[in-house]
Amino acid sequence: MSTSELIQISTTPDKPEAKPQDSFPSSSKVYVTGSRPDIRVPFRRIALSPTPAASGVEDNPPHQVYDTSGPYTDPGTQIDVERGLAPLRRDWITGRQDVEDVPEAVTDPSFQRRGGVLRAKKGANVSQMHYARRGEITPEMEFVAIREGLEPEFVRDEVARGRAIIPSNINHPEAEPMAIGRNFLVKINANIGNSAVTSSVAEEVDKMAWSTLWGADTVMDLSTGQDIHKTREWIIRNSPVPIGTVPIYQALEKVNGKIEDLSWDVFRDTLIEQAEQGVDYFTIHAGVLLRYVPLTATRMTGIVSRGGSILAAWCLAHHQENFLYTHFRDICDIMTTYDVAFSLGDGLRPGSIADANDAAQFAELETLGELTKIAWEHDIQVMIEGPGHVPMHKIKENVDLQMKVCGEAPFYTLGPLTTDIAPGYDHITSAIGAAMIGWYGTAMLCYVTPKEHLGLPDRKDVKDGVIAYKIAAHAADLAKGHPGAQAWDDALSKARFEFRWEDQFNLSLDPVTARSYHDETLPSEPAKKAHFCSMCGPHFCSMRISQDVRDYAKEHNLETAAALEEGMKEKAAEFKSSGGLYS
Amino acid sequence: MSTSELIQISTTPDKPEAKPQDSFPSSSKVYVTGSRPDIRVPFRRIALSPTPAASGVEDNPPHQVYDTSGPYTDPGTQIDVERGLAPLRRDWITGRQDVEDVPEAVTDPSFQRRGGVLRAKKGANVSQMHYARRGEITPEMEFVAIREGLEPEFVRDEVARGRAIIPSNINHPEAEPMAIGRNFLVKINANIGNSAVTSSVAEEVDKMAWSTLWGADTVMDLSTGQDIHKTREWIIRNSPVPIGTVPIYQALEKVNGKIEDLSWDVFRDTLIEQAEQGVDYFTIHAGVLLRYVPLTATRMTGIVSRGGSILAAWCLAHHQENFLYTHFRDICDIMTTYDVAFSLGDGLRPGSIADANDAAQFAELETLGELTKIAWEHDIQVMIEGPGHVPMHKIKENVDLQMKVCGEAPFYTLGPLTTDIAPGYDHITSAIGAAMIGWYGTAMLCYVTPKEHLGLPDRKDVKDGVIAYKIAAHAADLAKGHPGAQAWDDALSKARFEFRWEDQFNLSLDPVTARSYHDETLPSEPAKKAHFCSMCGPHFCSMRISQDVRDYAKEHNLETAAALEEGMKEKAAEFKSSGGLYS
Repeated sequence: MSTSELIQISTTPDKPEAKPQDSFPSSSKVYVTGSRPDIRVPFRRIALSPTPAASGVEDNPPHQVYDTSGPYTDPGTQIDVERGLAPLRRDWITGRQDVEDVPEAVTDPSFQRRGGVLRAKKGANVSQMHYARRGEITPEMEFVAIREGLEPEFVRDEVARGRAIIPSNINHPEAEPMAIGRNFLVKINANIGNSAVTSSVAEEVDKMAWSTLWGADTVMDLSTGQDIHKTREWIIRNSPVPIGTVPIYQALEKVNGKIEDLSWDVFRDTLIEQAEQGVDYFTIHAGVLLRYVPLTATRMTGIVSRGGSILAAWCLAHHQENFLYTHFRDICDIMTTYDVAFSLGDGLRPGSIADANDAAQFAELETLGELTKIAWEHDIQVMIEGPGHVPMHKIKENVDLQMKVCGEAPFYTLGPLTTDIAPGYDHITSAIGAAMIGWYGTAMLCYVTPKEHLGLPDRKDVKDGVIAYKIAAHAADLAKGHPGAQAWDDALSKARFEFRWEDQFNLSLDPVTARSYHDETLPSEPAKKAHFCSMCGPHFCSMRISQDVRDYAKEHNLETAAALEEGMKEKAAEFKSSGGLYS
Repeated sequence: MSTSELIQISTTPDKPEAKPQDSFPSSSKVYVTGSRPDIRVPFRRIALSPTPAASGVEDNPPHQVYDTSGPYTDPGTQIDVERGLAPLRRDWITGRQDVEDVPEAVTDPSFQRRGGVLRAKKGANVSQMHYARRGEITPEMEFVAIREGLEPEFVRDEVARGRAIIPSNINHPEAEPMAIGRNFLVKINANIGNSAVTSSVAEEVDKMAWSTLWGADTVMDLSTGQDIHKTREWIIRNSPVPIGTVPIYQALEKVNGKIEDLSWDVFRDTLIEQAEQGVDYFTIHAGVLLRYVPLTATRMTGIVSRGGSILAAWCLAHHQENFLYTHFRDICDIMTTYDVAFSLGDGLRPGSIADANDAAQFAELETLGELTKIAWEHDIQVMIEGPGHVPMHKIKENVDLQMKVCGEAPFYTLGPLTTDIAPGYDHITSAIGAAMIGWYGTAMLCYVTPKEHLGLPDRKDVKDGVIAYKIAAHAADLAKGHPGAQAWDDALSKARFEFRWEDQFNLSLDPVTARSYHDETLPSEPAKKAHFCSMCGPHFCSMRISQDVRDYAKEHNLETAAALEEGMKEKAAEFKSSGGLYS
């Protein structure tokens, strides 16, 4: 069986005929076209039913939401995982005339790419930050502006000053541009990837598409096992969202897992290989300095970042400074050649409540601030990774310090988990921290699944993680007062109050689950038009009574306290004689 | 089939031989005895395995946790749901010589109570607050002090000043005393109860025991359908935790659901009936005043509290002030007779993000403050119910205002949900708000299950809700710096770092789930002793590498930055010649 046959990319394994868009009933894919016809920005439009009113019906406009799911939910697009998605950005990239083909690029034999591998012409810098600083509004920036409901010039300015990034490797033209920055919607990342122990290429490609279906804004491929290059190729070619990696993992595979054999040469080659595949951002643990390693000696849980521990072991073994730090400017040169963004890794992030906000963590953060400035000298886009495990009262300090030290470069945090005592439920322990840190200004939240600390996530875990983080991100958008965020809550709450059950389901983050929970107790179709539900039954439905109260008050002109005081005595008598509210 | 045969109270429906304590492997029930032999305070003790160390083994002391599960997890106790739990407080209550039998009490024919129904002797006040204000440390207070690791005098003082309550109806002697107050561990409540649409007595009794197994500190029986008295009797007789109710529900059943037929007489009789059964706290919606009803007219979701909507409709129908408000002192008299605590209901709480912190909500809160002072004049214990649906940035205002207006009476909130867009996942949308509001000072968090807004919770939903709220409550305890809270996180994190997999599972809130997630990818027994897991595989295990780094540094005396600087150059050479870390 070929890889493509194994890739599912549908909603229900037991229903092979199901399409991804079946997860969102009454939704349709719409596109808003920008200043040129090939800027087509996708949205999901949720059709709503009218409100029955005394005076006829009141229409409810469709509600439109940000859509990360790419062409998979577009019934007008034929998906062929063996060809990959259409390279929608290709013309934008080549149109700038600052790139050239890389004839010697190593491509994966299992995948026939649609176009050649690109790199910047000698001396050119193809990063979005570079264009932004030159004052250019690229099609990528305009795409983002339409997607977020902002002015293109605002997007350009945020990218130019380093407060937002648009991860967009010139070799990943299939991705739909998106921005990560605190003046944009809070984004979420889903980690996927196989390990030496488990999982296949097809499963990982499926998880990628599955996670974007539910709302992942970027995906990190953290594969460490077999087929690391091949897995990545298939993921990138089929991904509508930016892909991040931790290149040290593949470098370590290349030296057969022997940490002390890692070298700049091996690492550099790995960076170029991955940049030519189209990875949009690299996690680089350049802040794990030799002198910080002893700071972890008295920790409860030592170093919990895989990359961090590898670099710490390397530093110790060689008694040399971290080669990612000493070669940081060399790395910058590679980044400018393909527009790969930095995700400066927090190799010394705390792995337990006990270790939160400690000397090791904050020492590394200072170094990340220093590296941010160097990257910006090269016009390279940068975001900063953050913890980890942090109790609630210590969360804000992380954001405040990161903003100060790293000049407001976007913060990208893993959770944080607000307690260590709930393995099996760390999507919840961390959604709490994620929502809070998002509110405080974190730009992207890396999801945590229920399997965290216990195993690799399967399809269900990926979805549970994504939904928990969509909740956290949206809660943060609300708390930040992001314009337009509350419209979604309002649309759903109005549907709820008006007993438009189908609309309530369709407006929810996971319509199928919402509907199935309802149907467990009241499965019949009439129940979905009922003015009550199984929670309270007809006599105890607060919303029904509340509507009755409102209708009665309106009818009798009693909608203000003054009117109540004036006329209610008589009205009450009249009301009672007419049989009352529930005659 | 009798009611008792239908009651499951075990962990796994498909394994009838399973015992509740099987949910917590390596745990045992222990009791700490107080100043008299019948003060026996339960804890769950989790045995831990030793750490393998170079110098032999290092013992890890057992970790002891607060235990809400009552006699069900005590293998030395024979459970007989038809007799109910042993009335452990009976002698304390009668020993105070301020109670008398109620010969005319109406008891449920389906249940043979072990003792008579009690009430205060004429003129006596049997509330814990009354004793506390007289300077008496009751056995209940001492029990709480041992349970929380506090001084009995501190407990007495908190109860006396109204900052904590010990819900303890003299007719519920089966309950183990517990305190709700912001200087105590944050508590959680689980709502159960059937409705006209669904569920049976046996199911509800089972849900009660099931929720306390996972950590519910109190349970509210919100039944509204058939068998309301009988269901409550069975629940109370078998409940090791305080039981709360909303008496207006039963009062409304008594008038066949016709709101305008509600009256003080019907309500008073209902209060007495429930107080004689042993309900520990009553939700009383006395703050829904006639003049506040118009404030809800422009709301997105009107009045979402069932009790609130009923009282609003009653006020409007009669154009009279809420009879719970006008008869509040009469209610106080009943409360003093049985020691029922007030849970002053927030009938006008917001039911959507749009309605959070609005005029209606805060107007009612002012009235709840006024009523708190009246209750305190009667030495009645009071807590205050709170929202609901609140975006993160508006949560703190709720706590600050409640503390000020209600003189620091314990706050008891439902969530709050931090967004409306995720029906099916409202245990998560609300765990975020619950953790935060707990940190800010809320004393008890009312759980929300995944079925909120969609249907009545089943067993799985109850557990999911309780676990989500145990997470929120513990995260809040950590953030408040509650003494001892972090010891649990530390014990688990230490086990994790030391690859004591079994200890990690056993220390988690839900050991069986944690273990089963691990076993999905690495089911073999040796894997539970392995120094890596399926997430990263052996080469990429940060914790293993981190331990190796630490061992190496210790062995070579390199545990400080200074030592590193001094001696590392030579050591590195020596290290590499000896084959390095991974020879």
